[in-house]
Amino acid sequence: MARPKPLSGFPEFLPRERLIELEVLDTLRETFELHGFSNVETRAVEPLSQLSRKGDITKEVYTVSRLHADEHDKSELGLHFDLTVPLARWVLEHAGHLEFPFRRYQIQKVWRGERPQEGRYREFTQADIDIVGRGELAAHHDIEAPLVMLEALEKLHDRIGLPPVLMHVNNRKLSEGFYRGLGVEDTLSVLQIVDKYDKIGADATVELLGSELGLDTDTARRCVALASIHSLDTGFVDQVRALGVSDPLLDEGLSELVTLIEEANRRVPGRIIADLSIARGLDYYTGAVYETQLVGHESMGSISSGGRYDSLASDGKSTYPGVGISLGVTRLIAPLIAAGEFSVTRSVPTCVVVAVDSEETRETAMDVAAALRARGVSCEVAPKADKYGKQIRYADRRGIPYVWFGGPIGEVKDIRSGDQQPADANIWMPSRDDLRPGVHAAE
Amino acid sequence: MARPKPLSGFPEFLPRERLIELEVLDTLRETFELHGFSNVETRAVEPLSQLSRKGDITKEVYTVSRLHADEHDKSELGLHFDLTVPLARWVLEHAGHLEFPFRRYQIQKVWRGERPQEGRYREFTQADIDIVGRGELAAHHDIEAPLVMLEALEKLHDRIGLPPVLMHVNNRKLSEGFYRGLGVEDTLSVLQIVDKYDKIGADATVELLGSELGLDTDTARRCVALASIHSLDTGFVDQVRALGVSDPLLDEGLSELVTLIEEANRRVPGRIIADLSIARGLDYYTGAVYETQLVGHESMGSISSGGRYDSLASDGKSTYPGVGISLGVTRLIAPLIAAGEFSVTRSVPTCVVVAVDSEETRETAMDVAAALRARGVSCEVAPKADKYGKQIRYADRRGIPYVWFGGPIGEVKDIRSGDQQPADANIWMPSRDDLRPGVHAAE
Repeated sequence: MARPKPLSGFPEFLPRERLIELEVLDTLRETFELHGFSNVETRAVEPLSQLSRKGDITKEVYTVSRLHADEHDKSELGLHFDLTVPLARWVLEHAGHLEFPFRRYQIQKVWRGERPQEGRYREFTQADIDIVGRGELAAHHDIEAPLVMLEALEKLHDRIGLPPVLMHVNNRKLSEGFYRGLGVEDTLSVLQIVDKYDKIGADATVELLGSELGLDTDTARRCVALASIHSLDTGFVDQVRALGVSDPLLDEGLSELVTLIEEANRRVPGRIIADLSIARGLDYYTGAVYETQLVGHESMGSISSGGRYDSLASDGKSTYPGVGISLGVTRLIAPLIAAGEFSVTRSVPTCVVVAVDSEETRETAMDVAAALRARGVSCEVAPKADKYGKQIRYADRRGIPYVWFGGPIGEVKDIRSGDQQPADANIWMPSRDDLRPGVHAAE
Repeated sequence: MARPKPLSGFPEFLPRERLIELEVLDTLRETFELHGFSNVETRAVEPLSQLSRKGDITKEVYTVSRLHADEHDKSELGLHFDLTVPLARWVLEHAGHLEFPFRRYQIQKVWRGERPQEGRYREFTQADIDIVGRGELAAHHDIEAPLVMLEALEKLHDRIGLPPVLMHVNNRKLSEGFYRGLGVEDTLSVLQIVDKYDKIGADATVELLGSELGLDTDTARRCVALASIHSLDTGFVDQVRALGVSDPLLDEGLSELVTLIEEANRRVPGRIIADLSIARGLDYYTGAVYETQLVGHESMGSISSGGRYDSLASDGKSTYPGVGISLGVTRLIAPLIAAGEFSVTRSVPTCVVVAVDSEETRETAMDVAAALRARGVSCEVAPKADKYGKQIRYADRRGIPYVWFGGPIGEVKDIRSGDQQPADANIWMPSRDDLRPGVHAAE
């Protein structure tokens, strides 16, 4: 068989790269669990009818069918393209077994049947947190969800040198209240046009608001002026007030956004900005909305987005409001890994290679390894009773820092320094930094 | 929307059940990494041509296609049905970046387009370890791989009360050498018929060996006699010798099996049995073969199987021999969970609910939670400034053991005992058992 070629859009990592991804996933899990989020996994497939509810995305769905399906098995299934549609279905299905507000995190692959194209992923990992209520969900959760994600991203910044982030936040109530205060009725359409402001500029947006929605120039200019407001602190409030619009929903939105900015600056300073151009095109958001940029890598687009939705799902009896934020794990780290932004201290979990003198004493080497493993030290027994030099090279090629010689009372060599010391396999421990592979920002 | 119904064959866990699965997955990962296995994930899809190489399994493949595929995108893809076919492809694709022998573990979902039927999974998680060589791979790895899996299963026995296992092992060289020593040429066909011995009995097997392969009765009886041999120690050697057959390959197989049994009894006593009826129908095994039963749950079939294969893959220049063993995680735990074999101390990661006196002091409660989290204690701030009784019930319904009252210098109540003590959020720690949800055998 010839050497297989990669499939466009289906990224795969080498072991060394996977160590970086694992470090990211472990940090996410740790943070989410510290905040009381329960892990959930949903099946990879949903009925096509579920997946096509958001009209627009239908074209990107991968359908799944049995190669030899028979007449009785014409169930139409597709691979999930996000973790929100499955969550909505799962919550309805299991609501009777859940306590609300229900906090869940979910880290899974999702699939999109995109046209093959540079930088487009057809399979990628997402990490989502959501807090779902039954009937009601307090507004303070709209502050909590983005703070949890910011905390995770900040840990990644501290631990492995992920570039810092800047989360751009807005509130749908603020924008909708503002438009309403201006006498505009179809606020969603305004939102969707203003969403293009970043790309097409102020004048074109004003024109579009006039030609498409019939807004007069003054009204359109004020809509665009609103979208141009941003501030790292609560200064945005005065700028909004200066536009001379008032509406109770606007006040509610302003107040919620103020609390979010204040709380974020208290908990994770300098990582959030009120940015009233953030609209999030999707129609289900009803309050806070979030988009996150990696500082210095803004061209990557938003790496973590989400918001408040007043109806994740409804089963006739109850409506389930929620707030959530999603991190595009693959989208975030695959380009950084490819660009060599991280270094890993070694490519394997192994900390110690136990050398083998001769095949007859392999069992002794296995005893040494068992003693070290019993205390959490990852070991391999050398695969062959080669000359010591070759066994040391086996370790060196993998970046394994230590080689053990002799029995449980033997000697351990740090192959980086050449330092070799007597050691007891029931006592010896490597330094904390050497115990596990370490991920760091590349120099 | 009406309450959705589960999809047959696609099991999903509730948060409490997922905690059990996570404990299993964490223990597997810990064990595999302690033995120096690197984690790899492969994409969920493979070209259909790859998946259909093992003729027989083709019918169970799920195909994947873009809902709106265009002319240029007629790639034929299917979901992987195991982790061995992807490994073979991945090793060939990335061989230039790997060091051999290469040790990898892989824990992922796999899919099989089975007819919907009780107890058949269409999506399930497998955990595989393999050691892959380039050109050659020493026989001692055939002992290592099953011992690593046994160690993981023994940890699960000790930690969460997974029933003990008994691994049934044989060696293809032993059987094939024996058949060869009897003058049989088509040893694979004998193996495949003898594989039915457990189901159809000795007489029917002898008859089949005669009618299908033309073996004389004495030869057929000795083939069946071989399959009936099993021993917890190395007693099987004398029983084989007593059948009066000799062949160099038989000697090699006997010797390898003796070493495996001896080593396993030394490292994980009482969990292995030489069972010469184990054949593993698949034609690619060439040495040691393993099947594992859960004691008291033998009707589940083998929960962990594998063996030695001399050619996982070949790219013309090099051949890649390997040895591996796979654990059917879902297959193992889903029935045990459904049968109530495990109990979990709580359904959420949360250890402490920080009570909220009034919405005005929510920020103080958030400070308490932040202080506790900084030292690894999972917290939630109560969602509502209800009466304390209601906030305690919020914790109680989730099995959360502690409720915190007041600020960072406050009081913490163990709601199980009712005991309430002054505590400092920068110092206080729960007991080790309470820190994380615990999984145990049900009483």
